[in-house]
Amino acid sequence: MELTPSPFAPASYAEPPQVAGVRLATAAAGIKYKGRTDVLAVVFDGGAEVAGVFTKSKCASAPVDWCKANLAGGRAGALLVNSGNANAFTGKRGAEAVKLSADQMAAAAGCKPQEVYLASTGVIGEPLDASKFGAVVDGLVRDAVPGRFLDAAKAIMTTDTFPKLATATAKIGGVETTIVGIAKGSGMIAPDMATMLSFVFTDAPVAAPVLQKLLSRGVKDSFNAVTVDGDTSTSDTVLAFATGAAAKRGAPEITEPGDRRLAAFRKAFGGLLLDLAHQVVKDGEGARKFVAITVEGATSKASARRIGMAIANSPLVKTAIAGEDANWGRIVMAVGKAGEPADRDRLAIWFGDVRVAVEGERDPDYSEAAASAVMKEPEIAIRVDLGLGTGRDTVWTCDLTKGYIAINGDYRS
Amino acid sequence: MELTPSPFAPASYAEPPQVAGVRLATAAAGIKYKGRTDVLAVVFDGGAEVAGVFTKSKCASAPVDWCKANLAGGRAGALLVNSGNANAFTGKRGAEAVKLSADQMAAAAGCKPQEVYLASTGVIGEPLDASKFGAVVDGLVRDAVPGRFLDAAKAIMTTDTFPKLATATAKIGGVETTIVGIAKGSGMIAPDMATMLSFVFTDAPVAAPVLQKLLSRGVKDSFNAVTVDGDTSTSDTVLAFATGAAAKRGAPEITEPGDRRLAAFRKAFGGLLLDLAHQVVKDGEGARKFVAITVEGATSKASARRIGMAIANSPLVKTAIAGEDANWGRIVMAVGKAGEPADRDRLAIWFGDVRVAVEGERDPDYSEAAASAVMKEPEIAIRVDLGLGTGRDTVWTCDLTKGYIAINGDYRS
Repeated sequence: MELTPSPFAPASYAEPPQVAGVRLATAAAGIKYKGRTDVLAVVFDGGAEVAGVFTKSKCASAPVDWCKANLAGGRAGALLVNSGNANAFTGKRGAEAVKLSADQMAAAAGCKPQEVYLASTGVIGEPLDASKFGAVVDGLVRDAVPGRFLDAAKAIMTTDTFPKLATATAKIGGVETTIVGIAKGSGMIAPDMATMLSFVFTDAPVAAPVLQKLLSRGVKDSFNAVTVDGDTSTSDTVLAFATGAAAKRGAPEITEPGDRRLAAFRKAFGGLLLDLAHQVVKDGEGARKFVAITVEGATSKASARRIGMAIANSPLVKTAIAGEDANWGRIVMAVGKAGEPADRDRLAIWFGDVRVAVEGERDPDYSEAAASAVMKEPEIAIRVDLGLGTGRDTVWTCDLTKGYIAINGDYRS
Repeated sequence: MELTPSPFAPASYAEPPQVAGVRLATAAAGIKYKGRTDVLAVVFDGGAEVAGVFTKSKCASAPVDWCKANLAGGRAGALLVNSGNANAFTGKRGAEAVKLSADQMAAAAGCKPQEVYLASTGVIGEPLDASKFGAVVDGLVRDAVPGRFLDAAKAIMTTDTFPKLATATAKIGGVETTIVGIAKGSGMIAPDMATMLSFVFTDAPVAAPVLQKLLSRGVKDSFNAVTVDGDTSTSDTVLAFATGAAAKRGAPEITEPGDRRLAAFRKAFGGLLLDLAHQVVKDGEGARKFVAITVEGATSKASARRIGMAIANSPLVKTAIAGEDANWGRIVMAVGKAGEPADRDRLAIWFGDVRVAVEGERDPDYSEAAASAVMKEPEIAIRVDLGLGTGRDTVWTCDLTKGYIAINGDYRS
């Protein structure tokens, strides 16, 4: 089917910087799609420290199992990603396909199979023919060059309508380091499902346990704070690779998470994850609106998060936003159903800067016109004050439109 | 907006039986709608034992607060229901409106205000003008007659496309008793939301504590086992009234929940609640398919329920059903995200009688044609065997169509 580009698709992309120690190449292996790239190979010639965060699904894909099992080693030699087939719910054959993929890539890149990281996105339950990688990996490793991040972001797309890329720099011990990240969002082609993948690369000399801590903490308030439809994929994967090449330019090696020289990098790294997470929401299936939901006055940050997610996942809230309707009653409903401490009669709600409800009823100065004007904007901020405590959190979502139904329901497999 | 009738709307309705001790009347009070009834009054001249189950929302409506506060009394003299305004999130004015409504109805019906039960469905956050009831209650009480249950079911509709009614009979101590129930489902007019109301009437001489136990247990596997969109209303209310009039015909008074003479009545009562709950799903906003989801082999019934609800609330599962696509990979996804014990490699899935997955991968004998044929039916059974234990449960839902988006998003308030 023809996909309508997201209104948030960038008009153009700046040339992404290179990350020293990272070479990339893409190929069209014909996994499922015709006439486009569907395989990404990333080679770390000097190796890289690696960290990962994965789906909590009890039905995780074979590549997720593989990455989790090898992450304790902390070192990566290569990354191999395909779109078009998720290699999920594929039983023993799925595990065999993962092993064969890693063996082929390891032989081509000159590293151990356990140092090859794998991710797949696409159809669930369809066996993945890993021999297709065998035909392309030698050429990919040979042809891989630095800086091809935009091509990389394109090769991992499914129903994404724009490639997702973010870059940042930060000084460690006075030496500039570079971070580049790519992501894919909610995609669906035939009998497929929403899948989120993101890969982040840096030349900073950050040891794997430190990188893991940065990633786990960063994901919590970025990728884990967004939702398109509340459906958790079998394949969600975020991997971070640090080549350490900046050490040659004098950057100090960071081996302790508490190292103060990491402050700027931590901030840049977290900001980049959030940028990518926002891009995923902005390209959510059928999305026309980008919505930030802030809950404050909760009994804790965790409680604020759960109430924020109850609002962000409510189909009635999301369809009201699609209809540009200032339907704050549905926010009340979502707060009420969240199962978290809330006192109806202390609740206040804002759309943008317009307070629509206060002390458990409609704001005495409520202006339908002012509230409606906020709803017409492409980006909408909703704020809820529970009036109970100091817990505060923000989550992000998109609206629920007929485009979502069309992408996910208007087809036969 | 013009609503497309549900494909499950009955072609005609049998004349419902009378329930001795129950008189009904409806009126058009102009709460919100034009040219239709919007108020239902039910009078129990000899009083009735009463039981209730309500929304768990932290932002419950004023009528829900009222009913909960009076339920301990166990006796009802009248029921007053309106559509068009939910009297929810209306602060002190909401509580005052409820008090005034009960006073007016009590004066008309000759009972205490605390014996008047109230329910409202419609817009949230809009103050309810209870003086409109004052203009009609005397006439309603005067004109109320037995057996007007179909008119009653019509008066409480919002965006329901058909009135929901169920009847049953059961013998207690050899004497036939009658049960009639009505319900309204997911409705939405302007800035409104899904709201579920149901009222059940019987002439059986069942004491309030027994009736409460029957209702609480019955709701668990009927109304609490269905979902249209996962959004819990501020107003959900199920009330059961037992006039005891059958005692005059010799039915024994039941004062203990464990009374064996209650067996047939319990079964009939539970079946009636399930019938009404299914009607609510079949008239879910935009629904074209009715789906039963059975999860077995779980570690407990509660775990099976949570996994069933994860499947039933998944927008990706529901859009696949709307598209008549045998997309079992999305069932796998929903099982995986439910947060309950599950072993990917023991999972088996059926659409109707067609097994599509077994032992963690696609069934070796999988037939796309056979699975697709099941998906074309209006009523679809999905079964998941987790292979872990003996926990089993069934929940019911509908598909997610563009009709849902249109009803909830294609308008301005």
